[in-house]
Amino acid sequence: MGVVKAVMLGVCRGLVIVDLTHEVPAQDVWEGAFQLMAAVPFFPKGTVHLAVVDPGVGTARKAVAVEVAGQVLVGPDNGLLSLALRKLAADAGVPLEERAGSLRIAPPMAAVELAEPRFWRHPVSATFHARDVFGPVAARLAAGVPLAAVGRPLDRLASLPFPAPQRPSARRLVGHVVHVDRFGNLVTNLPQDMVPAEAQVRAGQVRIAGLHPTYGQGQAPVVLIGSAGYLELAVPGGNAAAQLGLRRGDPVEVELP
Amino acid sequence: MGVVKAVMLGVCRGLVIVDLTHEVPAQDVWEGAFQLMAAVPFFPKGTVHLAVVDPGVGTARKAVAVEVAGQVLVGPDNGLLSLALRKLAADAGVPLEERAGSLRIAPPMAAVELAEPRFWRHPVSATFHARDVFGPVAARLAAGVPLAAVGRPLDRLASLPFPAPQRPSARRLVGHVVHVDRFGNLVTNLPQDMVPAEAQVRAGQVRIAGLHPTYGQGQAPVVLIGSAGYLELAVPGGNAAAQLGLRRGDPVEVELP
Amino acid sequence: MGVVKAVMLGVCRGLVIVDLTHEVPAQDVWEGAFQLMAAVPFFPKGTVHLAVVDPGVGTARKAVAVEVAGQVLVGPDNGLLSLALRKLAADAGVPLEERAGSLRIAPPMAAVELAEPRFWRHPVSATFHARDVFGPVAARLAAGVPLAAVGRPLDRLASLPFPAPQRPSARRLVGHVVHVDRFGNLVTNLPQDMVPAEAQVRAGQVRIAGLHPTYGQGQAPVVLIGSAGYLELAVPGGNAAAQLGLRRGDPVEVELP
Repeated sequence: MGVVKAVMLGVCRGLVIVDLTHEVPAQDVWEGAFQLMAAVPFFPKGTVHLAVVDPGVGTARKAVAVEVAGQVLVGPDNGLLSLALRKLAADAGVPLEERAGSLRIAPPMAAVELAEPRFWRHPVSATFHARDVFGPVAARLAAGVPLAAVGRPLDRLASLPFPAPQRPSARRLVGHVVHVDRFGNLVTNLPQDMVPAEAQVRAGQVRIAGLHPTYGQGQAPVVLIGSAGYLELAVPGGNAAAQLGLRRGDPVEVELP
Repeated sequence: MGVVKAVMLGVCRGLVIVDLTHEVPAQDVWEGAFQLMAAVPFFPKGTVHLAVVDPGVGTARKAVAVEVAGQVLVGPDNGLLSLALRKLAADAGVPLEERAGSLRIAPPMAAVELAEPRFWRHPVSATFHARDVFGPVAARLAAGVPLAAVGRPLDRLASLPFPAPQRPSARRLVGHVVHVDRFGNLVTNLPQDMVPAEAQVRAGQVRIAGLHPTYGQGQAPVVLIGSAGYLELAVPGGNAAAQLGLRRGDPVEVELP
Repeated sequence: MGVVKAVMLGVCRGLVIVDLTHEVPAQDVWEGAFQLMAAVPFFPKGTVHLAVVDPGVGTARKAVAVEVAGQVLVGPDNGLLSLALRKLAADAGVPLEERAGSLRIAPPMAAVELAEPRFWRHPVSATFHARDVFGPVAARLAAGVPLAAVGRPLDRLASLPFPAPQRPSARRLVGHVVHVDRFGNLVTNLPQDMVPAEAQVRAGQVRIAGLHPTYGQGQAPVVLIGSAGYLELAVPGGNAAAQLGLRRGDPVEVELP
């Protein structure tokens, strides 16, 4: 939103702001969390990530900021940040304990509940915290204000579970489509290291033998490891979601060799 | 448009450019004017706002720039700038007289008709003044060229009336939907200070008692004061426009307590 | 894509990045090539243009960079860059020979195949070369690394022919719609200098006498020279593609006076 950027640049004119995406459907916290997770590893250390998918704006959900591995995430405490947090922690080898729907935050990570109104824009609207709370605080953090200054410490954050594939038998894995990208490629929750190159994959009406190195050419559906490191179904030059009639949540089965 | 930014950055590489929105429907001057009005108060002093919704490009409509309260608006003189101008003037306590569809510009405001071709890109296309006239001039103004240098003084600008709510009786107010945002929230022309918290609101088939502090939770439609300061109808977690079957222009009635 | 910008800004934080468009349909190399061609002349000298419409990602198609007239184009060697290259060469008076579907690159132009993995992001994904190859290399070039350092010389680049209008008789020209813009204006391949102001134009069911100076007012379809220098059909204040039932590829005939 241009207005959020305007407020942030009013805090600090030198900010470099990158739009990650504006294609998250309204209120779709999972989709936002997935796209954030897929993107954060590619940003330089020191980046402040502002993410707002916030159906609970104005309710008791907390506004938070969390720091891990040199990056900072700012947003509502509704699970939106949790997949990215887990990814950054894992990549940095930082242990992160999950229990009963929440993530335990301990050093070297740190989290705060945004509780310093002097860093907000006033009057604070009841419905637009991106403009009045999250944006101004993210801008301050990017400008060098330390995390501890913008709120009070938290030791738990809401977590959105990244669904683990199931393994009903030694030679079968069952995952599902977690994201459909703008080309119609179907991204699953089956990670690279669980799927050998000779696997058989079944989804909807199709059965595909063996991973493909790339989208390549041809018209038949292929399976491959996508750019986020998960098994993906694609139709070279086409739209797999439309052609296979699949969407988020649909199961994808893998038969191991 | 990337090409307009390219031309502007060619004038001055140090510009910080923020896209306000690209979601104004083609030729919809009112929608552009509304979104500009809702955004300008959040930009820092010294901002140059370039706005182009210009169905009359190439006709006799003037190209103008206007300065008020430390901000500058650049665009076609078709009313697009007028709601923002009125808002900035009101917020700064600057009187602004409207008569017969035009706004009278007097100090401390100033307006000019863009009439200095040396600040334009040449050859000037007949159909793309954003690239060839408005953009280059806005870039110059942002780079420090004074308003008076880019054109000749004007004392009137075209005005798009912001429709005032009607008051058919002491206890009834009638406004209408002036904007539907991307979440489907229905923004009206009923300002915050005319609608007490205990008002009854009727729109389409629904009647809602009392203002809600925020979108909050639940499924029922609510009314609240939105982030631009006007009465708004929303469905928490849903799309009010779709669910209530309402759109821009539809009446919204308020019964006062 | 935000992730590509993140990687580029990680290479060089001072880059100024402009999004040209995100409205090229998936896999539509021609549309990307056309929009790039229409935009490049308006960017300042020294611009590095990164363009990726890449249905062949991961196949044998080369990744290339090419320099002409002080601008650099980076992308897949599938013709995407060729219309822009031809345009920049023509505007600068640089001869450019085309033969059998390829363009011959000779001084003062220079082209390289991207072949220096030290300028890439690793591991290189099989499917997202914008993030891992094209983006990082473009950022390096923008930061001052010379073209010759990022790959090995090439003397041929794939070419997408810009279709020339046909001239079946002395007084008839036949072109076609090559692009429909977001307003529904129909842009043809008939260049400004082939169409005199008194020409009669026929497309679909309509016949229009004489070029219009601008979109202007009224409701009837008009023909004019658009901002990219080609004959264009438009409906003032309306959508010509929808109203005339025309789309890309449809013929447009001109009867010369």
